Amino acid sequence: MYVLYYSPGSASMVVHAVLLETGTLHQLQLVDFGRNEQHGAGYLKLNPTGMVPTLVVDNVAVQESAALVMLLAERHPEARLAPPAGTSGRAEWLKWTVHLSSHLGGLYRQWFYPSDLGMEDYSVAMRDAVRMKIEGTLERIDGHLAQHGPYLLGNAFSSADLQLTMYMRWARNMPRPATTWPYLNALALRVTARPSWIQMCEIEGLHDWAAAQA
Amino acid sequence: MYVLYYSPGSASMVVHAVLLETGTLHQLQLVDFGRNEQHGAGYLKLNPTGMVPTLVVDNVAVQESAALVMLLAERHPEARLAPPAGTSGRAEWLKWTVHLSSHLGGLYRQWFYPSDLGMEDYSVAMRDAVRMKIEGTLERIDGHLAQHGPYLLGNAFSSADLQLTMYMRWARNMPRPATTWPYLNALALRVTARPSWIQMCEIEGLHDWAAAQA
Repeated sequence: MYVLYYSPGSASMVVHAVLLETGTLHQLQLVDFGRNEQHGAGYLKLNPTGMVPTLVVDNVAVQESAALVMLLAERHPEARLAPPAGTSGRAEWLKWTVHLSSHLGGLYRQWFYPSDLGMEDYSVAMRDAVRMKIEGTLERIDGHLAQHGPYLLGNAFSSADLQLTMYMRWARNMPRPATTWPYLNALALRVTARPSWIQMCEIEGLHDWAAAQA
Repeated sequence: MYVLYYSPGSASMVVHAVLLETGTLHQLQLVDFGRNEQHGAGYLKLNPTGMVPTLVVDNVAVQESAALVMLLAERHPEARLAPPAGTSGRAEWLKWTVHLSSHLGGLYRQWFYPSDLGMEDYSVAMRDAVRMKIEGTLERIDGHLAQHGPYLLGNAFSSADLQLTMYMRWARNMPRPATTWPYLNALALRVTARPSWIQMCEIEGLHDWAAAQA
């Protein structure tokens, strides 16, 4: 039994969708950002960074969405969320899983939580710089999909596509939404049509974003 | 046969050390930052982000140091760099591998490459904020080691300790070097005494940092 500490639409989304892909039994535990529960003493015991998600696995609290995606993919090989160790595509799956988390994840944090660095002021120039960096990363990924798509690993869907779709959704109210890149949009159309994604959105109450129909 | 594209003392260090831990045949290819080779057309074909390391594995170029550490750990299980899949400690190894890369790696990039965001100005307040965030992360890890050390995973050395030691070295000229935290320093003393670390420093010509003797 897994217990997922989540907040709707946050980085816990991808872990929630992966749990649904595996079909495994799990329990959801809301961390109410409105009540600042992520910084409460109870939650900080589970996750000292005050971030979501945390997944309790065999009674141990584990953090970091990319690590949890990798853990669940290897614990549930029948869900085929990743190329098995030793097969072709494995290196690229590891690369994308880390890359999306380090680059897009980090940049979005800067965009949405300027206060994260404990600063009072956060210049327009800085915000523009972060936005351009996000757009540049999306542009590069779109180029990769144009050549090697439709999924990040080519013809095979993997957990990395769920990660990417989550990060695409986060840009929905930014000056340039991620769905304006054609190959990214095509990938999101496929991913958001999966039962796991649909069910995750139902449960979390997320109805404000969709890829454009081709 | 592996080919590692590296720059001395950069994020390629940990992949170099891991290759030496495995004892496997590999070739080193210097990416000369002094000549800006990381942004040259040849290297950008291998790694479109212009970052090091890149490791060529079975004729495929793979990026992201944390992904490469995980890939090498699973391809060379005899080196015992990670708890095997399905064993206790596995979740925590995945967590630390991702966490160190996302948090410390990202923060150090901001500290060392303010121009990375394409900005002209980068305020003193911003630099201070990044530094405090790095120190806060090191403080939290030191606290973890005090309770659960001497290694990140307790009594078992893993590749995550090599990652952490690399990030500790990067703070050597910062206002508060990482070796001033006692449990971090104790971990670095163990890691820097390993043949892999000593040999990596010899080959890369890195002789400007050591943990303090207890």
